[in-house]
Amino acid sequence: MNTITDFSFDADELRLTWTDGRNSKLDAIWLRDHCQMPASRDPVSGQRLINITDIDPEITIKNIALEDDDYKKVLIVTFSTDDYQSHFTSSWLLENCYCLNEQSDSRSAKYKQLWHGSSFNNDLPKFNYAEFCDDLQTKITALKAVKDLGFCLLQKVPCEDKQVLKVIQQFGFIRDTNYGEIFEVRSKVNANNLAYTNLGLGCHLDNPYRDPVPGIQLLHCLQSTTEGGESILQDAFMATQVLKEENPEHFNRLSQEYINFRFQDSDADLYSRVPMIEINDKQEVVKVRFNNRSIDTIKLAPKKIRPFYQAYRHFAEILEREDQQIHFKLEAGELMLFDNTRILHARKAYSKGGTRHLQGAYSDLDGLYSTLSVLQRNEIVAE
Amino acid sequence: MNTITDFSFDADELRLTWTDGRNSKLDAIWLRDHCQMPASRDPVSGQRLINITDIDPEITIKNIALEDDDYKKVLIVTFSTDDYQSHFTSSWLLENCYCLNEQSDSRSAKYKQLWHGSSFNNDLPKFNYAEFCDDLQTKITALKAVKDLGFCLLQKVPCEDKQVLKVIQQFGFIRDTNYGEIFEVRSKVNANNLAYTNLGLGCHLDNPYRDPVPGIQLLHCLQSTTEGGESILQDAFMATQVLKEENPEHFNRLSQEYINFRFQDSDADLYSRVPMIEINDKQEVVKVRFNNRSIDTIKLAPKKIRPFYQAYRHFAEILEREDQQIHFKLEAGELMLFDNTRILHARKAYSKGGTRHLQGAYSDLDGLYSTLSVLQRNEIVAE
Repeated sequence: MNTITDFSFDADELRLTWTDGRNSKLDAIWLRDHCQMPASRDPVSGQRLINITDIDPEITIKNIALEDDDYKKVLIVTFSTDDYQSHFTSSWLLENCYCLNEQSDSRSAKYKQLWHGSSFNNDLPKFNYAEFCDDLQTKITALKAVKDLGFCLLQKVPCEDKQVLKVIQQFGFIRDTNYGEIFEVRSKVNANNLAYTNLGLGCHLDNPYRDPVPGIQLLHCLQSTTEGGESILQDAFMATQVLKEENPEHFNRLSQEYINFRFQDSDADLYSRVPMIEINDKQEVVKVRFNNRSIDTIKLAPKKIRPFYQAYRHFAEILEREDQQIHFKLEAGELMLFDNTRILHARKAYSKGGTRHLQGAYSDLDGLYSTLSVLQRNEIVAE
Repeated sequence: MNTITDFSFDADELRLTWTDGRNSKLDAIWLRDHCQMPASRDPVSGQRLINITDIDPEITIKNIALEDDDYKKVLIVTFSTDDYQSHFTSSWLLENCYCLNEQSDSRSAKYKQLWHGSSFNNDLPKFNYAEFCDDLQTKITALKAVKDLGFCLLQKVPCEDKQVLKVIQQFGFIRDTNYGEIFEVRSKVNANNLAYTNLGLGCHLDNPYRDPVPGIQLLHCLQSTTEGGESILQDAFMATQVLKEENPEHFNRLSQEYINFRFQDSDADLYSRVPMIEINDKQEVVKVRFNNRSIDTIKLAPKKIRPFYQAYRHFAEILEREDQQIHFKLEAGELMLFDNTRILHARKAYSKGGTRHLQGAYSDLDGLYSTLSVLQRNEIVAE
């Protein structure tokens, strides 16, 4: 077991040596701020009871002691201010020390399994809905597919009105919008959105004009007797990687230039100003927005117009490559559950004969990630 | 009226001169992409029918004609590809041309009325709830206060259970979370969150561990007979401006370093990785996250720890300055409606005698902005 084998300190920092030979240097202010004692942390909620301004800005380390028994090593830090003492277990320090642990971003492309059209060999992440509801392991696997691959398919979902909302309640919360808690995807006259026609729709992410954009989309197929109307899914995170490989300047352009998306009808006027490719501080992709139908007027500075269009066209071309896509026909009783910040969806045009009826709904990623994390915690306890 | 007085063109761009002497240069690809004709835009939804990849990458302008009648000037652009023609009205070009119009970000601090403690002279944006519901102008003024100042107070809101959800339905959509559609703010034993104790809470924004963070918070006071428990509001956008003025490096530090926020209890495990001060491409502040209780372990690179703490402490000190805050006691029947990406709230500790009972709920900014925009549109039509 990796534990503390040696330590030293001065007023400003604590230095630790670990069994595996690694070293940590921990700042006095960080140690005081991360004190886990009941005076500093609420024992029930685990929430911090002190403000940063409660800590003496000149705080230093006065003494360090290492208590060592059979079970665990505990480091006792005595601070200069009021001789305040904090106890840190070796295991807590190992897990939380900023020298040994890097912050990771569970939303970033770096921590995902990126895929293209042939990644699955016809073996898509499909799950039986009854098992998804009743079996802990199936639900964990399915939600993990959404986290890692960006999507899963549920099968034998009862073809009942508003069933899609019951599916959301299995892992998260309904995101109500101006389209209603559920939206009906089928042809109608005078549609306020092209989704509600029988036209084909190119690869897109939904509602980029909404801020915050809904992180999860569900599409539940209730009827599917038309010719055509096949579904297409595509990994936009993979597409950004391809874009970056083929032309880093185009990638940078789309991550740096903010554009507007907009949706207007008689009841709504939704507007966002965002980059097409959103990156974090480590230049990792965390969110993509792509929807040709709802890009608002492009109002970049004149000199940026042509380079922007070159980058935009390049990205759009990648998104049309069939080898990047998976194609399948959603049958009645099937449901697609996907990350709407990452997985593009499209559908082919369909015949006017027959009926194609999907019910859709939105939810958010944080609820799904939270449920997955709690289930995984419970799984460990059960083992 | 400002209209087109002269034009010229070559294959790549159209040049316009306006009545007021200004000039526009518009790129061929931009003109084709922004074609407003029924072949390119759905006349009902206004959505684009073409993909960027449908446009010839070598497209050029073949001819320009200006039709001029008593009512409006129409520019007819003939493109090289298939002699395709687009008609643009002078008024559309005036409003949408990227040379004359800059993209603005309705979420950014630049377009807000920033305030400090003495900005209101005891004249807070308060509205009678019945008038808010029934009178178009009152609702517009109240929602505009939320957009511009970040908050408003509603009075004489019926002290009924779940009334706060009815208030949300007046302008937007309920954001359900692990705390439920509504959360009860009153003391309870073994609280999973310090909000549910009688302790004072420092200035904070709610749920920074949620991604997306709820953009709107409502707190409805049902009972208020304790001693203490006064409410405090503060403009975090103003605080970021003060921070930048006092120490630009501290401002940069907090906008560049991403940190983690986290909330865990038996039913939830919520996690975000975000900067405390979020800026857009123009370095304008668009979102603040501040909550000492739920900052997770700071795992920055070792050399960044001390500079981060200096900046964080400085920002926290600004947030404790009473001259930046407004203080008032929320009475039964009063409701605070505020932008949770901007307006910090706090409460003072309160006595164990008496009852303080608030019901809270979350919503999102985009729904409120959309409703405001539609109401303002209707107001213009009604005039």
